Amino acid sequence: MQYVKDLKWKKGIQVKDLVSMLGNTGFQSIELGRAVDVIIKMKKGGAKIFLTFTSNMVTSGLRGLFAQCIKLGMADIIVTTIGGIEEDIMKAYGEKFIIGDFRSNDVGLNEKGINRVGNIFIQNESYMKFESILLPILDELYKKKKRWAVSELFREIGLMLDDKDSILYQAAKNDVPIFCPAVTDGAFGFHLFMYQQDHDDFIVDVVRDFKNILNATSYDDKKGGICLGGSISKHHAIFISLLKGGMDYAVYMTTSHQTSGSMSGATTNEGKSWGKIKDDSDAATVNGDVSITFPLAMISAMERLSEEGLLKGD
Amino acid sequence: MQYVKDLKWKKGIQVKDLVSMLGNTGFQSIELGRAVDVIIKMKKGGAKIFLTFTSNMVTSGLRGLFAQCIKLGMADIIVTTIGGIEEDIMKAYGEKFIIGDFRSNDVGLNEKGINRVGNIFIQNESYMKFESILLPILDELYKKKKRWAVSELFREIGLMLDDKDSILYQAAKNDVPIFCPAVTDGAFGFHLFMYQQDHDDFIVDVVRDFKNILNATSYDDKKGGICLGGSISKHHAIFISLLKGGMDYAVYMTTSHQTSGSMSGATTNEGKSWGKIKDDSDAATVNGDVSITFPLAMISAMERLSEEGLLKGD
Amino acid sequence: MQYVKDLKWKKGIQVKDLVSMLGNTGFQSIELGRAVDVIIKMKKGGAKIFLTFTSNMVTSGLRGLFAQCIKLGMADIIVTTIGGIEEDIMKAYGEKFIIGDFRSNDVGLNEKGINRVGNIFIQNESYMKFESILLPILDELYKKKKRWAVSELFREIGLMLDDKDSILYQAAKNDVPIFCPAVTDGAFGFHLFMYQQDHDDFIVDVVRDFKNILNATSYDDKKGGICLGGSISKHHAIFISLLKGGMDYAVYMTTSHQTSGSMSGATTNEGKSWGKIKDDSDAATVNGDVSITFPLAMISAMERLSEEGLLKGD
Amino acid sequence: MQYVKDLKWKKGIQVKDLVSMLGNTGFQSIELGRAVDVIIKMKKGGAKIFLTFTSNMVTSGLRGLFAQCIKLGMADIIVTTIGGIEEDIMKAYGEKFIIGDFRSNDVGLNEKGINRVGNIFIQNESYMKFESILLPILDELYKKKKRWAVSELFREIGLMLDDKDSILYQAAKNDVPIFCPAVTDGAFGFHLFMYQQDHDDFIVDVVRDFKNILNATSYDDKKGGICLGGSISKHHAIFISLLKGGMDYAVYMTTSHQTSGSMSGATTNEGKSWGKIKDDSDAATVNGDVSITFPLAMISAMERLSEEGLLKGD
Repeated sequence: MQYVKDLKWKKGIQVKDLVSMLGNTGFQSIELGRAVDVIIKMKKGGAKIFLTFTSNMVTSGLRGLFAQCIKLGMADIIVTTIGGIEEDIMKAYGEKFIIGDFRSNDVGLNEKGINRVGNIFIQNESYMKFESILLPILDELYKKKKRWAVSELFREIGLMLDDKDSILYQAAKNDVPIFCPAVTDGAFGFHLFMYQQDHDDFIVDVVRDFKNILNATSYDDKKGGICLGGSISKHHAIFISLLKGGMDYAVYMTTSHQTSGSMSGATTNEGKSWGKIKDDSDAATVNGDVSITFPLAMISAMERLSEEGLLKGD
Repeated sequence: MQYVKDLKWKKGIQVKDLVSMLGNTGFQSIELGRAVDVIIKMKKGGAKIFLTFTSNMVTSGLRGLFAQCIKLGMADIIVTTIGGIEEDIMKAYGEKFIIGDFRSNDVGLNEKGINRVGNIFIQNESYMKFESILLPILDELYKKKKRWAVSELFREIGLMLDDKDSILYQAAKNDVPIFCPAVTDGAFGFHLFMYQQDHDDFIVDVVRDFKNILNATSYDDKKGGICLGGSISKHHAIFISLLKGGMDYAVYMTTSHQTSGSMSGATTNEGKSWGKIKDDSDAATVNGDVSITFPLAMISAMERLSEEGLLKGD
Repeated sequence: MQYVKDLKWKKGIQVKDLVSMLGNTGFQSIELGRAVDVIIKMKKGGAKIFLTFTSNMVTSGLRGLFAQCIKLGMADIIVTTIGGIEEDIMKAYGEKFIIGDFRSNDVGLNEKGINRVGNIFIQNESYMKFESILLPILDELYKKKKRWAVSELFREIGLMLDDKDSILYQAAKNDVPIFCPAVTDGAFGFHLFMYQQDHDDFIVDVVRDFKNILNATSYDDKKGGICLGGSISKHHAIFISLLKGGMDYAVYMTTSHQTSGSMSGATTNEGKSWGKIKDDSDAATVNGDVSITFPLAMISAMERLSEEGLLKGD
Repeated sequence: MQYVKDLKWKKGIQVKDLVSMLGNTGFQSIELGRAVDVIIKMKKGGAKIFLTFTSNMVTSGLRGLFAQCIKLGMADIIVTTIGGIEEDIMKAYGEKFIIGDFRSNDVGLNEKGINRVGNIFIQNESYMKFESILLPILDELYKKKKRWAVSELFREIGLMLDDKDSILYQAAKNDVPIFCPAVTDGAFGFHLFMYQQDHDDFIVDVVRDFKNILNATSYDDKKGGICLGGSISKHHAIFISLLKGGMDYAVYMTTSHQTSGSMSGATTNEGKSWGKIKDDSDAATVNGDVSITFPLAMISAMERLSEEGLLKGD
């Protein structure tokens, strides 16, 4: 039996010690503590880890932590939406996003060429720069071959980047594939379309990428999922795992709730009806903003794994 | 100046009269009333209407209402996720989904071959049936041509169905294209992959579909969006409209909140920073479960449009 | 086994027929259908019904429906917060609240003497008028006796009002007691304080009101709860019922979620750990804005009860 | 202009350094960073600080941190609900609460005499022990005088406790008054009622306590509010401040959203329409579970204040 304990501050307290206390505090802090345990368990269990996130998280500074997770062996397969890929590339080329406000004058922002994503602002220039970056890349890739699976495109781009905080860069360097089942849903898609206008034999083969993600794990592999937010990123990782027997470990972090019946709000418990998670100690659902809960959980897990020499490159 | 009015029940009250009163009640009921006005305005303004939804909504009985909206001219372009397409087809072939419970024993359900989506249960048999339906269809399509845009696939399938409550059926009959930017993210994707294993020249061309959705409206068209839930369905409609100058009218209905910075929680106000909605009377965001809010708003709008003879086929 | 059914609109559809279809639609619409069944069951079972709500709901037009519920015998005991009492009185004296916007310029509103409650505006004048109404009432009551239980105060005030849409009026006329465990938490409290400054022997006895609410039901009575939102209104009804053996039927309607461990998000299931609800068919939790879900559920229940002649005064 | 920065982990990272990085990350982490700044600003500005919380937070381990905040001068006035007082006393007498699960078998728990509050379990014995503690205390107090304001009762009880982690203990030792506008809404209320049955002249005077809280600050004092969750705790602090000219600084932390028009979801922006907060740098609203967000924000603020020697007793 585990008891609630009074939480108290000590000067200079480290994140790992606070999160350890949070595990005995109450409500979502308890679930956060459980998430840390599941992440450690999936790593120690040798699971192939699916890390999934939505593009707004790459808009945020979580991008750096995602890249670091890949570098340190905390993510073996990435699934995300195309906006995140675009913004990772923009940032690798030096674009900066502005800290703004949820309650902005949006008509005014629009007139200034500023786009709002929650409380982050993206300038139109960043998108224009992205265009000027992507076009020569497509030209180069087209010379190599005409038919590309999406993850192969991303790998090629990752190899061209020079930014250690880039998700694409670290993924390419560490042989971690990045999947994006909706590659056309953003500026990237627009540029692919423009390119195909002049190069009709240029094919982006999403069906072949399905084969690639299916082959990224085997039925015998242990599989873990760290799913941040919802959308197709989360769904794709769960669905693909299912075809290989289901996840053995899962951590879902989301602001959504199961009451809506949506993918973003689906809990690891609902996941049990779909797969093979059987034991409560192998799954945790943390409700809250990923920009806060994910750094807390992942940093705590990495601290503890690092102490045992279980982080890659340690 | 509009005032809050005391809501009172009269025996036999119609939906349209209740929703009209809700517009003067408070909080989200006021926003619901605004949503009705915006839907009517976009229809009267002659806008091309994007209707977007996620697959769990097709799991639910909203499927019938979506099909009806298409039939009655309340939707010109559909954007959805692939699960919704799969389930629309299953249902067109007679599969039934079970009303269940959010708090089920999920391990037990899994043992019985039942998958849970919130409080709805789907049996494994339905997925097996889907496989047996889809394979001969793919064979037939492959005979016609080798390279297919996604929306063209859906149209062909819609023409083969015989169910007036089917979204694909009504869309095909009424020349309403259905777009799905992540076609491989589900059982459909798995079967495409299996098919491609034996037919390597079978290409599903998502880039060409980008062209199709781009051509579905012009820069000069007025454009409206009714976006239910979030995910890529909502994002794709907004993004594509933006490339054509932005939406003139927008109704977002969602359980998510803007505080998360996510697409599902993004409000029509955030939309103003991206596009050309300028006037508050042209946009409404209703927070709540779409299974309740959408029928109320759409039925009220259709009642009022029908009175003026503005519904197709009236 | 109950199946999901395709929802379709028919011209002139009544609320009760739509809500009946919603019960077979999905997610929260299913829970809404269950709530209607539980309300009918608690009425037919002869339960004493606790109806609880928070003050913002009285700010809204739900006030009229609450008054009507009392009149028609759908509520036997009311528990609310003091703001709702204040605003019921203001409205009974003709004050009007304005339909506003969630995204107002709040500093500007403040300068104009307007207070915002979500998307409803209340003018400072309304509070001043309340003061001028309450003071003579307190004088009159003080003449009668010096020590008052809160619900007795409200009953006296209700008898002085002349507004059929008033909660206090209908409660007084129909012998429905109104409890408010935090009587000082608002303008009412301020005026009580001012009055006590000059009349030190004027006592508002909240402990005696505990006795009154405890005596409002017996251990043998069947008890039902319709709890809208959270706060002390909901908690007090649940707690008091528990002292009398627990509720037999419960409907909770709220925008909050159980993940927070808060009273407002607590579900009827959590209620089972505290009380005697045993059967799922006797309890329902509907997640969503009460300004939409409560009218739908209560109107549907009243329509069906009315058909069977079970509404008071029918 | 402040930019989004890539978040990266360094081994042994302290809470204050992580939270500082979170301020440049995105979405609610940005708001969390702002909350830290506002807390520091209100302390340095010499404001009288209202700290408000709901009883489930005292059920959790936040109790210890609340007591510590009082001890270190981070809270000058406490407003809470009665359940929190009861549980603070139980814990001071050695009762322990169990870490449980949101998805428990609630009927089974009830049979074992266990009550569930989210994912925390409270045993019936704890309530029985509370009764045996409270009754002799009431006897002693009754001997002193017959008419008690609520905060005076709490102070007397606090002086009898011997637990440095107790809120009542630290409040009594540090002359911090605790207000509870709904003293009867819980077991405490039941015991007051039982006591009054035999001692009719025993009066709990809530109106007098209104005077006490009103006198706890002056019109000239700067006033700050740290409001956790909603309910009457939050409302009372805001309302009382308003009578004294309004809060100069405010931090709201909540899982609720403004869309509901509820007190728990009301943002500091809505607060501007009621009071005198004018500058955005003086107010922050953090959406998320207080069991995670409050320790992060308060610990970061205390670390920074401690470095400058601004914490009491440092």
